[in-house]
Amino acid sequence: MTPHDYARQHAEEFRAQLLDFLRIPSVSTDEAYKPEVRRAAEWLAAEMQRIGITTELIDMPGRHPLVYGEWMGAGENARTVLIYGHYDVQPAKKADGWDTEPFEPVEKDGFIWARGATDDKGQVYIHVKAVEAVLKAEGTLPVNVKFIIEGEEESGGQHIAAYVPQHVDKLKADVCVVSDGSMSRVEQPVIVNALRGGIGLEITIHGPSADVHSGMYGGTLHNPNQALAEIIAKLHNPDGSVAVPGFYEDVRVLTPQERAEIAAVPWTDDEWRSETGAQIPWGEPDYTLSERVGARPTLEITGMAGGYYERGFKNIVPSKAWAKISCRLVPDQKPHKILHQVVEYIKQITPPTVRLELAYREGGGIEATLINTNNPMMQAAINAYEKGWGGTPVFKREGGGIPIVGAFQNVLGLPVLLMGFGLNTDGLHGPNEHFSIDMFHRGINTIIVFLNEVAQI
Amino acid sequence: MTPHDYARQHAEEFRAQLLDFLRIPSVSTDEAYKPEVRRAAEWLAAEMQRIGITTELIDMPGRHPLVYGEWMGAGENARTVLIYGHYDVQPAKKADGWDTEPFEPVEKDGFIWARGATDDKGQVYIHVKAVEAVLKAEGTLPVNVKFIIEGEEESGGQHIAAYVPQHVDKLKADVCVVSDGSMSRVEQPVIVNALRGGIGLEITIHGPSADVHSGMYGGTLHNPNQALAEIIAKLHNPDGSVAVPGFYEDVRVLTPQERAEIAAVPWTDDEWRSETGAQIPWGEPDYTLSERVGARPTLEITGMAGGYYERGFKNIVPSKAWAKISCRLVPDQKPHKILHQVVEYIKQITPPTVRLELAYREGGGIEATLINTNNPMMQAAINAYEKGWGGTPVFKREGGGIPIVGAFQNVLGLPVLLMGFGLNTDGLHGPNEHFSIDMFHRGINTIIVFLNEVAQI
Repeated sequence: MTPHDYARQHAEEFRAQLLDFLRIPSVSTDEAYKPEVRRAAEWLAAEMQRIGITTELIDMPGRHPLVYGEWMGAGENARTVLIYGHYDVQPAKKADGWDTEPFEPVEKDGFIWARGATDDKGQVYIHVKAVEAVLKAEGTLPVNVKFIIEGEEESGGQHIAAYVPQHVDKLKADVCVVSDGSMSRVEQPVIVNALRGGIGLEITIHGPSADVHSGMYGGTLHNPNQALAEIIAKLHNPDGSVAVPGFYEDVRVLTPQERAEIAAVPWTDDEWRSETGAQIPWGEPDYTLSERVGARPTLEITGMAGGYYERGFKNIVPSKAWAKISCRLVPDQKPHKILHQVVEYIKQITPPTVRLELAYREGGGIEATLINTNNPMMQAAINAYEKGWGGTPVFKREGGGIPIVGAFQNVLGLPVLLMGFGLNTDGLHGPNEHFSIDMFHRGINTIIVFLNEVAQI
Repeated sequence: MTPHDYARQHAEEFRAQLLDFLRIPSVSTDEAYKPEVRRAAEWLAAEMQRIGITTELIDMPGRHPLVYGEWMGAGENARTVLIYGHYDVQPAKKADGWDTEPFEPVEKDGFIWARGATDDKGQVYIHVKAVEAVLKAEGTLPVNVKFIIEGEEESGGQHIAAYVPQHVDKLKADVCVVSDGSMSRVEQPVIVNALRGGIGLEITIHGPSADVHSGMYGGTLHNPNQALAEIIAKLHNPDGSVAVPGFYEDVRVLTPQERAEIAAVPWTDDEWRSETGAQIPWGEPDYTLSERVGARPTLEITGMAGGYYERGFKNIVPSKAWAKISCRLVPDQKPHKILHQVVEYIKQITPPTVRLELAYREGGGIEATLINTNNPMMQAAINAYEKGWGGTPVFKREGGGIPIVGAFQNVLGLPVLLMGFGLNTDGLHGPNEHFSIDMFHRGINTIIVFLNEVAQI
């Protein structure tokens, strides 16, 4: 029996296990879910241990645990693959527009529907099951493997960022593979060659000390909703560029060759429309859609609220309004500097009639990463997609970020292979997140091939 | 035993009953509370019936019931007083910043703390208890009384607005008294001589059909939070005036005499600071604080939200953002016209990159009311405050509105006496609403005197 046979014969069992993993609401961005995040780590560690990977939970006070596992049976002279992923997920509740409960996964229409299905539990599980298939079918692996699966990818990744530089020997490997991404079409796999960085902050505008009657005080108070809106409206220029002074000053200018490379993976307005459901693209007019997402920094208001925003109404001038701001950064932008620029600009445009409160992590933020594609391990990834997936991958810049990838490349000095197995339309971070059952199994086959290919480089 | 003796001897019982009334969460602005609104009407009707007022619930499909009661024992030749109030309340939940549960009233530090304590259950109950005290002490009343207590004052008052013009005979009276207002200092009672009108609408800005990943799509989509903020920021001019074209064109210009009358009831910046907790007043620079609230129209964003606004964060471009807008109107402004102007302006400033959804009630809104103070009944109110409260009242324009008051004056042709018994700092519409126990009892004494004074006009 080959590893592929084993994976095929155990396909339903693999998915049933994945559904169990998805049932755990490991939302790392909200402290209330802390016990559930730990439960997910423990579940994953137990499962890895069960199939023969020596696994431990690594704790750090106040942070979510890392799941570390290794199988070193291939010996000192064999290659070692470091596999990274994350078991934490974005927040989700049915009322956000889900057709089913986000933490009660269902299989329907060829997809698994659940928060974390594609981002990233499903993709993490591909690696676990590929290793299991090879171990069970052949009793051994062609390479050593190390797993480092974190629980803070969606919330800044402080634990792994502190851990990696202090454990360079433990994490020693020949290549790092990360499956936390997506492609536009299943027939056209993608290897990502750039990730954006980011910063986040929250601003709160305070007005009266409590909500007051809009009839009794309206017209004499600078309404915090209005003041916040006025501030937000000044964060962009009319052409869609970010208005924060200095925001673009370190942005690396795209070379004609880079622009040509980006254009080689087409992303049409029609595809954008069908993916987003919106009609008219927006943003910096001098850049294509792919460039805006892959090579330009952005500033987004990911959430805002103030006053009475639920059903019905309430005649008040509210005491406060708040907004959550997220910037995506590109190579050469320094998170610390951008955070400082955004904070100073917001202070400057806040009117004296309201009080500004800022919340951000000093020194927080993640730098963008360009992936070095000129390394022999990249060929293993290309071969794996060709033989295991059924398509030759193209390179693509990704708009999102994976905080720790820069450290794998720069601190550990590893070639990093960003081999995503999801679809852009999987609904990651939104409602009705899902993961193609076909792509889950193709992914397992691809990683089975990949482990063999790495052994032969 | 005089009615005042009776009221004094039953003071604790009266308050215990009021606390029962306050326990019913009769939030009329939210359909989910519909059964509770009815329960409050039934509670009040039963209580009125118990003390000898012939009471009925008046229903209208889809609306909250009116509580109508009458005691006509004074005979055909006696005066008749129509008493208006409302038993519905604004929304409230502890998380809004309450120190106690809003629907679990407590007596503490000389106040009753609960949603509706001052607005308007406590003030309605003053009338019920004054009538009870006179009836129990004297076996009769010096005047006939009719009560009409509605359950939609906080939500547009459609039921009573339809009912009053169709029941002019039933509501026939010599004077209408309304206690749903407040004063700055207990020593200085206030009779309100102007009420603002109002309109309300809700706007929703739609972007992508579902929340999408801010890394994958940010920079290509007009973020609905941002687009909404841009729209809101254009609703006011930098000087605090409303930017909607035509908004002020029908506003009646204040005469020097009216300005002098308004200035005669001082409202200092220091009082404003201590009442609001804010530091720097805002609004139209050519008008005093009292004028801005009493004689100028306003536009307030009473609530807004979009994306992920709860604890933690979520890296998304949200599918929508929404805002609730409330305008206060002054004499001569037509609600229908203002609503149309606001709607057209918002349509005009909404960018083509997002989709606008509007929700408002066609033909809704309330006109402002100026109260005719030159009528003999006004002297009964003044005498009642002097003898029953302990202070000579002044006239004051009120910033809020009571939808039906215009109809009492214009449709029923009644002199209307706006005799409020609360304090401006009672926290109405905000958290920790409260009502002074002293003022509750002073109010009962004032109405006992008032009924006698009306009989002597």
